[in-house]
Amino acid sequence: MAQRHLDPTGPVAGPAPTGDALAGYLRGQATEFLRALRLHRENGAGAGGSEGSVDAALALRRAARRISASLHTFQPLLDTDWSEGMRPELAWVSGTLAMEHAYTSRLDRLLTALHRLSGTDVTAPAAGSRAAGAARVGAAAPRDAGLRNPPTSAPERSNLTVGAAKAGALLDRQLTLARTRAHSTALQAMGSSRFHAIADKVAVLASEVPLKPTAKTTDLRPLATAAHDRLSDAVTSLPLITAGHPYNAAALIHGLSPDTVPHPQDAPWHQVRLLLRLHRYAREVVLGDPDGTSGLRLLAAGQALNQHRDASEAAAAAAQAARTPRIAPATAYALGVLHADQRHEVEAARFTFQQCWQKEAVSTG
Amino acid sequence: MAQRHLDPTGPVAGPAPTGDALAGYLRGQATEFLRALRLHRENGAGAGGSEGSVDAALALRRAARRISASLHTFQPLLDTDWSEGMRPELAWVSGTLAMEHAYTSRLDRLLTALHRLSGTDVTAPAAGSRAAGAARVGAAAPRDAGLRNPPTSAPERSNLTVGAAKAGALLDRQLTLARTRAHSTALQAMGSSRFHAIADKVAVLASEVPLKPTAKTTDLRPLATAAHDRLSDAVTSLPLITAGHPYNAAALIHGLSPDTVPHPQDAPWHQVRLLLRLHRYAREVVLGDPDGTSGLRLLAAGQALNQHRDASEAAAAAAQAARTPRIAPATAYALGVLHADQRHEVEAARFTFQQCWQKEAVSTG
Repeated sequence: MAQRHLDPTGPVAGPAPTGDALAGYLRGQATEFLRALRLHRENGAGAGGSEGSVDAALALRRAARRISASLHTFQPLLDTDWSEGMRPELAWVSGTLAMEHAYTSRLDRLLTALHRLSGTDVTAPAAGSRAAGAARVGAAAPRDAGLRNPPTSAPERSNLTVGAAKAGALLDRQLTLARTRAHSTALQAMGSSRFHAIADKVAVLASEVPLKPTAKTTDLRPLATAAHDRLSDAVTSLPLITAGHPYNAAALIHGLSPDTVPHPQDAPWHQVRLLLRLHRYAREVVLGDPDGTSGLRLLAAGQALNQHRDASEAAAAAAQAARTPRIAPATAYALGVLHADQRHEVEAARFTFQQCWQKEAVSTG
Repeated sequence: MAQRHLDPTGPVAGPAPTGDALAGYLRGQATEFLRALRLHRENGAGAGGSEGSVDAALALRRAARRISASLHTFQPLLDTDWSEGMRPELAWVSGTLAMEHAYTSRLDRLLTALHRLSGTDVTAPAAGSRAAGAARVGAAAPRDAGLRNPPTSAPERSNLTVGAAKAGALLDRQLTLARTRAHSTALQAMGSSRFHAIADKVAVLASEVPLKPTAKTTDLRPLATAAHDRLSDAVTSLPLITAGHPYNAAALIHGLSPDTVPHPQDAPWHQVRLLLRLHRYAREVVLGDPDGTSGLRLLAAGQALNQHRDASEAAAAAAQAARTPRIAPATAYALGVLHADQRHEVEAARFTFQQCWQKEAVSTG
């Protein structure tokens, strides 16, 4: 069943995909990387960034992740020194570029949640609003958007509502500062000689993939299957039976204990998120499907794990903000409600993943 | 389908139950009431109460609720003046006796939740412990008790853990005070001439039920069906589609808004809880099943609504405690987490009810 889980080893007809398919995929992603880089430079790089530069950074990271993942999964077909030198550099690029976006969407997630919880507008002022709005539109629509965004009642004043407003202002201050720093770091990185060296290497890759001589006749599918098996093994170790029981309250266990930032119970899920991504990209290579439009359930499972990661980090940010000295009790109370709310989003994401995974197993098993 | 929902109108063979069945049921419950009252007096009535007196109070309320409900549902068969005079008095008895137990189990629920959330022992000292323990044993086992009570790690000290401990102490102080007051009120009530008058009436009822002359030939089932239909109608107005989607986050909507104690969205569920009880008792009368051992799904649905009520009130108590002047931010944060946790228990209870109700409809529809 583990092997049948990966579509390509089954229904694909015709000759086995080999090094040529890998080379084609890598050339395509390298071209995407360069295109996105050009777009990013054309769109400028002010704080918060224009919509174009935000899209360009996303596309740049998207291509960098796929190149890096392919070098990892299909390493036996590639020049060893080259790919071992390349991978950490690509990881550095995508990691550095990811931070600004992460802080933007974290703030947006937390302010949206506070809004839902308080029935008042706690949206951050100027600096964050455009980027936050973009992130909101870009994010996967929650399965019950209608429920979560009821018509806003007129702003009401009370101790606790003021608490929500103050909590929103505090989070806005802290996460905007972090985002500004991340933006500077990313700008610095992209102007560095290290980055230029990587861009040069990717430019070469766009025309010439350093395959080993044997690659032309090597079947890619066993390597893709191995990536799938690493994912399957990791999923097996997840508490999926618990996750499949709605309202199991597992995500909040020890939520008030001191060592919950980051929450240790989340780590195996984060690991599965990375392995699922490797599996998806390997599938793209083998199926010749660079946009990954097949495998919608896999995509849904991956999105659930993204939600899991985002909610986990948002919950941690709320807990962290509650440790700010000299905040008012009402602010701390609102942050406590917000933290618990996000931990329940963590639990909800696990439930969604469990459901996706179960269906995936049924449909291909 | 609405009528078939009520088992007795279907599978019961033999002659239709009439006023004799009602009289038998009322005599039985009146006898139970008197037995419980004797037990209560024998067991004394110290603060917190002995285990015997707690059990006796439960039994007393249990019988009072059943008598009162039967007078309501089957009113056309009974002497009007008598039953109209009797019902508010029985409601007063069961309501007054309920308060002490409610505060005890609310405190227990909140401390258990804080324990689960913090991984430390925040159990209240002396005064509450025995009664709380009894309530814990008496409560319906949560479906995932194992998950909710992981092995306790050694107490850890930090800002937030101290917050949980302080929140526990605050709730203990406030709810113990409320319970002590409720205990005094109940003692006063049971020593009052008003209570003695009720006890006298129940003593008469134990041997002589004031049926109308027509009652001997009146079929009870249409009246029981009417009670069922009132329940069905009320359930129809509940947001069951939302409730059936796990993690719909509906219970926390406006959780930080000022008018959430009590939470307006809970009211229709509380109403269904009362109507379901009336239906269950009517079923007991018609089926001649005074212990209500048939209809396990109905019982489960009722327990879910009890959990709903308990979690709703516990969440309100946490929010209320957070309004105490001059508490530390860490205490307020812990109360916020606790409030949200209990609101999710509210949501979980709605989900459970939805599942029970669906099965009930399928099995009898």
